Amino acid sequence: MERQDKGMAYMLQYENIAWFEDGKVRILDRRIYPKVEFVICETHQEVAQAITDMVTQSCGPYVAAPMGMVLAAYECRGRKGDEQIAFLKKAVETISNARPTTRARMLNICTQCLLAGEKAIASGHEPLDAVFEEAIELNNRRYAKMAQVANYLVDMMPRQGKIMTQCFAETILGTMFREIHRRNMDIKVFCAETRPYFQGARLTSTVARDMDMDVTLITDNMPAFVMQNEGIDVFTSAADAISVDGHVVNKVGTYQIAIAAKYHQIPYFVTGKPDVDHPTIDTVKIEMRDPDFVLQAMGVRTAAEGVKGYYPSFDITPPHLVSGVVTDKGIYSPYDLPRYFEGMTEDEKKELMV
Amino acid sequence: MERQDKGMAYMLQYENIAWFEDGKVRILDRRIYPKVEFVICETHQEVAQAITDMVTQSCGPYVAAPMGMVLAAYECRGRKGDEQIAFLKKAVETISNARPTTRARMLNICTQCLLAGEKAIASGHEPLDAVFEEAIELNNRRYAKMAQVANYLVDMMPRQGKIMTQCFAETILGTMFREIHRRNMDIKVFCAETRPYFQGARLTSTVARDMDMDVTLITDNMPAFVMQNEGIDVFTSAADAISVDGHVVNKVGTYQIAIAAKYHQIPYFVTGKPDVDHPTIDTVKIEMRDPDFVLQAMGVRTAAEGVKGYYPSFDITPPHLVSGVVTDKGIYSPYDLPRYFEGMTEDEKKELMV
Repeated sequence: MERQDKGMAYMLQYENIAWFEDGKVRILDRRIYPKVEFVICETHQEVAQAITDMVTQSCGPYVAAPMGMVLAAYECRGRKGDEQIAFLKKAVETISNARPTTRARMLNICTQCLLAGEKAIASGHEPLDAVFEEAIELNNRRYAKMAQVANYLVDMMPRQGKIMTQCFAETILGTMFREIHRRNMDIKVFCAETRPYFQGARLTSTVARDMDMDVTLITDNMPAFVMQNEGIDVFTSAADAISVDGHVVNKVGTYQIAIAAKYHQIPYFVTGKPDVDHPTIDTVKIEMRDPDFVLQAMGVRTAAEGVKGYYPSFDITPPHLVSGVVTDKGIYSPYDLPRYFEGMTEDEKKELMV
Repeated sequence: MERQDKGMAYMLQYENIAWFEDGKVRILDRRIYPKVEFVICETHQEVAQAITDMVTQSCGPYVAAPMGMVLAAYECRGRKGDEQIAFLKKAVETISNARPTTRARMLNICTQCLLAGEKAIASGHEPLDAVFEEAIELNNRRYAKMAQVANYLVDMMPRQGKIMTQCFAETILGTMFREIHRRNMDIKVFCAETRPYFQGARLTSTVARDMDMDVTLITDNMPAFVMQNEGIDVFTSAADAISVDGHVVNKVGTYQIAIAAKYHQIPYFVTGKPDVDHPTIDTVKIEMRDPDFVLQAMGVRTAAEGVKGYYPSFDITPPHLVSGVVTDKGIYSPYDLPRYFEGMTEDEKKELMV
């Protein structure tokens, strides 16, 4: 069981994704996973740079960001209180700006750490321990919620069947597989390889294998064929954002698989929660990335000179293709997401974003 | 204009795809195209092997097969007539069996060459010249019909617009681009890269560029996004087979793009002709290829050990997703294909398969 245990370790314990120790933050390098290597950061700026450089992916940045704040608290140790506060505030900005698409959520996370640090400083203490405790608390809370989401998602699967996934979704994937095993279900997994970056091939399928799932990799032109010929029961993905009006923003390809799923009468369940920052989909702008990146595969050029590329990072799946939004509070119709916020105070809504 | 001329040459003249000269057949090696290199065959068995090895693709085998028969006629030169006939008959079998999916059509083509040879032998001549003339005649006729198909297909496009293609379709692609230029139309081309073999990236997009088209390569998870955001006017592909009941057998991925096209109200036109050998789709069996081939890209491993692969070579698009079957005799509804054969004698029907 060594393989499975190792996989479990790298999926389900955030300490293995990003962790502060001995004045450094080590971050699991997902760019080369399944090879297990860490990027070692000696300053919080290096943590921000690692996030920018895609060292950590999926939920990884939300694990790494508070550890970056812990490192900032360590870096300014021994200085005067107001200097420490200024230093931590600057770190909040640096880390939050590591990637444009995650900025809002990162800002909330880092600000929570800052507040914990300020409180410690106000009572005459060094901020390090308080920020570290807050970082651990934030990650614990997120992982516990993920386990709840996985529980509701697995409820939507047959005891014996086949599911299809799209792209990489670190924590939810791990908790979902753990829940499938816990219930002794017999589920086969089909992963689309997710060109051009191959997250499905390099990460999703490896994680499924590590967690002892029966996993089959397919290329991105095969989902409809597999649905037609293998009998997929559920299509599921995580989301980069879910607007409150029920649109799903996720890795390019999700929209196309959702169309194929609808055509084959297969339900599509997205995991996550509605995004208070996006009351409607109109505020979402799809980032276009380096077009040349699609002219190669695994570093080998595929197309001739003179052929143009095209690389939208995400796509948008409209609510009529979504069967349910699986949250920590249960499953919602994509048309009924405002109800998720019912009875919440503004503070609680803000806390959703950490 | 050198680039365009070269492209035109490699697309629109079958002499550049496979040709008999000086006792040898040279075949353009599509496995490494856009690099231009030829495989030189000194026996008809080597021609068959080259076809098996995918040296030539799309319509290439139908160009190479008669040249293989010419080589066979050359190989048995100077022998007795009945020995020559026996030799040519064996060559028909060898070449026709080069690939299971093309066997029926190859058999017809090679048999036509055999008949020409037999006729020459019966009148006391060497078979070489007669077989060569028949081979050229067969290829001329096919290319002329392709030009007609292209003419009808381009009728379905706006004067200014965007089309999407799937996989490689040597001759029809070339004649289509030539017709677009002839009419002075402003058409942009989007090619799906067609994993796992990258025909779209390596061949289709290169041919489009060679023929001076504005061409953009996308990965196989992007067609729906491009349809939604770029406004595709027409999706088109060739077919490995079209059953008389209107199902299209083509490179895996076609089905999925056809579903996305239907969803976006974009017409899908397939080029080819109904296949007398497949009165219904029930006689078509989808060939499953080496599953490990999807675990790599351009020779670089993408997935970890223990992950399974899955590789259907083709998929089947049902008639309700097909807007029209574009043939040399005009455009037919996929539900109306028996009419294509109306008024044809059995001999004429058989000749359709060469």
